[in-house]
Amino acid sequence: MSDAVTPEEQARHAEKMKKIKAARDRMMEGKTGEKGLIMVHTGPGKGKSSSGFGMVMRCIAHGMPCAVVQFIKGNWITGEAEMIRGRFAEECRFFVSGEGFTWETQDKARDIAAAQAGWKIAKEQILDPEIRFVLLDEINIALRYDYLDIDEVVDFLLHQKPEMTHVCLTGRNAKPELIEAADLVTEMTLVKHPFRDGIKAQKGVEF
Amino acid sequence: MSDAVTPEEQARHAEKMKKIKAARDRMMEGKTGEKGLIMVHTGPGKGKSSSGFGMVMRCIAHGMPCAVVQFIKGNWITGEAEMIRGRFAEECRFFVSGEGFTWETQDKARDIAAAQAGWKIAKEQILDPEIRFVLLDEINIALRYDYLDIDEVVDFLLHQKPEMTHVCLTGRNAKPELIEAADLVTEMTLVKHPFRDGIKAQKGVEF
Repeated sequence: MSDAVTPEEQARHAEKMKKIKAARDRMMEGKTGEKGLIMVHTGPGKGKSSSGFGMVMRCIAHGMPCAVVQFIKGNWITGEAEMIRGRFAEECRFFVSGEGFTWETQDKARDIAAAQAGWKIAKEQILDPEIRFVLLDEINIALRYDYLDIDEVVDFLLHQKPEMTHVCLTGRNAKPELIEAADLVTEMTLVKHPFRDGIKAQKGVEF
Repeated sequence: MSDAVTPEEQARHAEKMKKIKAARDRMMEGKTGEKGLIMVHTGPGKGKSSSGFGMVMRCIAHGMPCAVVQFIKGNWITGEAEMIRGRFAEECRFFVSGEGFTWETQDKARDIAAAQAGWKIAKEQILDPEIRFVLLDEINIALRYDYLDIDEVVDFLLHQKPEMTHVCLTGRNAKPELIEAADLVTEMTLVKHPFRDGIKAQKGVEF
């Protein structure tokens, strides 16, 4: 790589970028719609919850009130929980329904009750006209174990969610029915992870 | 799905979860190390920048000072920029070096100068012992076009980055050299996107 750009190269580059910009502008011209999205973050990689949390912070910055329901991480003191409760309690409601991962509780009836309590809160928040963005963190785990009925959840999202409200559902192993119903689905793929090298979950990175 | 859990089912579930927990505890026992990670978020899917931003907010919650260098989104007023500058200026330094995507500027020499100015700031922030987490947002775009030298960036990260400092590099098309050097790599895969249905980039979701 060299810093020196010849005039010919500069002209070629400008021409190429002009074409890309024109193509992009044409593509974006047709994209004028707005709607509340059903978003799913799934897959084994990192970033499912943290990007949901990042969107919550973006919404707060734009003056859009949010709600978060944590379905599984109930007994963790996470950075995001502290941040929202401590500094954005006005802008974002925060609910915890789960009591830790299922292998921690070892109590199926309690897990089901917690998941269903969380879904009840989730529906109330989604229906609340004041709330613009709802994050259902790790709900896919509850759906995967059938602690919640996938058909009921999908039906509610498709037919009762207010048109302009965004809902983001996170967690591994999203059910095919949910992927089918969603507007935007991202699969976080694990390419490399430091757990393999004996590195533990670290503050700021994982929680 | 039924809410009623029989005692037999409850016992079977508890036994199964106990085994999973024991296996997990054994696995986690060996994971006691801590180190500053080189993290890469790449791929065409959503969530690369927003999960980087989510980690910044987590670090702030844990009292870990951060720095963000935006390489490409220079002329956008994004939610995260407003949030950090407006409310967390003490906890997180925020720098913008890029002036928009390359097809907007159409000026290669200016793009190179902006990328290199950003990399200079990035190195200073990474070397600063006070800073615990550095987000290099969209730096992969600058690397892809060879506006920055990949060997220099990788060499710096591997040999000059302080041991406990985390660095997260985002953007599509991460170079193989960077993936090789990284501790944690996530590829955001696009499963479904509402652009296809004529929906534009929306506040809170995309920026």
